[in-house]
Amino acid sequence: MAQSREWRLKTRPVGMPTPANFEFATVDVGAPGAGEVQVRNSWMSVDPYMRGRMYDGPSYAAAFQVGEAMTGGAVGEVIASNSEKFKVGDKVQSMFGWREVFNARDNEVQKLDTHGLLEQLFLGALGMPGLTAYVGVKKIIDLKAGETIFVSAASGAVGQMACQIARQIGATVIGSAGGAEKVAFLKEIGVDHAIDYKAVPDLTKAVLAAAPGGIDAYFENVGGEHLEAAITAAKTHARFAFCGMISGYNALEANAAPKNLVQIVGKQLKWEGFIVSTYANMAPAFAKDVGGWIASGQIKTKETVEQGVENAVAAFLKLFTGDNFGKMLVKL
Amino acid sequence: MAQSREWRLKTRPVGMPTPANFEFATVDVGAPGAGEVQVRNSWMSVDPYMRGRMYDGPSYAAAFQVGEAMTGGAVGEVIASNSEKFKVGDKVQSMFGWREVFNARDNEVQKLDTHGLLEQLFLGALGMPGLTAYVGVKKIIDLKAGETIFVSAASGAVGQMACQIARQIGATVIGSAGGAEKVAFLKEIGVDHAIDYKAVPDLTKAVLAAAPGGIDAYFENVGGEHLEAAITAAKTHARFAFCGMISGYNALEANAAPKNLVQIVGKQLKWEGFIVSTYANMAPAFAKDVGGWIASGQIKTKETVEQGVENAVAAFLKLFTGDNFGKMLVKL
Repeated sequence: MAQSREWRLKTRPVGMPTPANFEFATVDVGAPGAGEVQVRNSWMSVDPYMRGRMYDGPSYAAAFQVGEAMTGGAVGEVIASNSEKFKVGDKVQSMFGWREVFNARDNEVQKLDTHGLLEQLFLGALGMPGLTAYVGVKKIIDLKAGETIFVSAASGAVGQMACQIARQIGATVIGSAGGAEKVAFLKEIGVDHAIDYKAVPDLTKAVLAAAPGGIDAYFENVGGEHLEAAITAAKTHARFAFCGMISGYNALEANAAPKNLVQIVGKQLKWEGFIVSTYANMAPAFAKDVGGWIASGQIKTKETVEQGVENAVAAFLKLFTGDNFGKMLVKL
Repeated sequence: MAQSREWRLKTRPVGMPTPANFEFATVDVGAPGAGEVQVRNSWMSVDPYMRGRMYDGPSYAAAFQVGEAMTGGAVGEVIASNSEKFKVGDKVQSMFGWREVFNARDNEVQKLDTHGLLEQLFLGALGMPGLTAYVGVKKIIDLKAGETIFVSAASGAVGQMACQIARQIGATVIGSAGGAEKVAFLKEIGVDHAIDYKAVPDLTKAVLAAAPGGIDAYFENVGGEHLEAAITAAKTHARFAFCGMISGYNALEANAAPKNLVQIVGKQLKWEGFIVSTYANMAPAFAKDVGGWIASGQIKTKETVEQGVENAVAAFLKLFTGDNFGKMLVKL
């Protein structure tokens, strides 16, 4: 009999979530049943999209249920097996995050071959955030060498990968992040023009100063002022990929931007929203390309690590205050 | 020596234009020079896009110059020719609207073969507005039989054609217009669900009542509340064509909608703005398809006609108050 601590949704947040919306509980986990495995998580992921699952409404991801343990990406190790498919010691990936130990059917967890890379990379640069960046840059935008792309939240889990994939393609990259430390990191990973959006008086002017001829593409993670700047800086026929708009996730009043939306007509812009799961077929190419670039050092990754499942909610909340840097992970 | 009355831009409008922004002048038009023709216009067009040309800023169409005659679509007849390409009596199309008589080089006007149809149709259903609808529905949205499309400003010059082209494709059409008379016209042209947006308490609910399963496509002419309704009613992977956003053309404060833009991500929406001139290569297919549908009576057209060049500014201003109905034309 193992014990596991887990986080449950206690009440649905209104606006910015607070620790009071969550409940920390301890449960007993019995022996795995027939066809089941027991896993001890070593890492779990906190991601902005989880905020959407705290609403009880139609969404692309099912809502978290009040009183139940939340879910999310995790990597761990099999500690007991009642399935022929897994043996003790196997590394696995699953969506049973937000907890320490769990039992699951053997088709609910996936074996993880790290190819010698750090296992936590498979929650970030080589996991969902990395694939999101890859799909957005390669498929939705179809970025070409010589083009200029603007990436918002550029030091984040998705943004840092979008910037570096764009660099590998041979594009000029403008990245925006908040604060000197994040901007220094952007320069370190090869971003051509790193903008500290908290320090510039006018973001649109800053983007246009970096790209006087305008931008060919925009990778949207933020919304609001960033989207307005991208619209004004866009060239004719520019392509925008929308993978998220974190500035509005906790807004009580819906975001009023972009005020310059009408330019979508005159500039003949192409906008497309996407959910990474739609492009699961790109995962093998992504693993080969990005795994290779990471192994060879051509792509660098940045993480913020919080220690212990008890700090998972605090880690999650930092996603919305800009206190995180790179991929936010919890080491269990 | 002919005399011609013409409208000039006197001052650049701030917000909604007023008659005081325009100047009505009479000029003498001498004999056409070598390689020139003299044309007396019979019809001229007023279109929403002309509002954009009254700003002095970067735009897809060159700004009107203060103190000079404005330009726009017109059809007329050659009354004197100093070119081998034209003879007196030839019908021609040009961009020398907003005036009665003009001289132009023979490459600045195009011969008009009406194929037995009314010449003013070539400023509306068979002209720029009709081609705009055709490009939006056929190329940008790529509408399929059995799909559901929502068209805003559905009784307007572009909207009425978008609705009827969509019907010809075999789609279900939801059209929105303001007032009982316009709604009656929408039913007459085969719109499946005609919504009087001025009469319904909640436009989003009205669209969803017409399409409980959601819409596959949206043809955007309006912006604001209409765009928000379309976003909320959109199915996953819905396609939006943006040909204009008239609700914001005269706004002093930029339009704050859509407040629900974030749904572009979760619903994986595809948005594309377009300018009809980019798709000039579709004009022959358009003339064949839509000319045929009009000749056979499968497509109906509606015009509002103002009499005399002196009323052209009044006609233009009606575009923004909803007082027009169908294609707005001025008979000279």
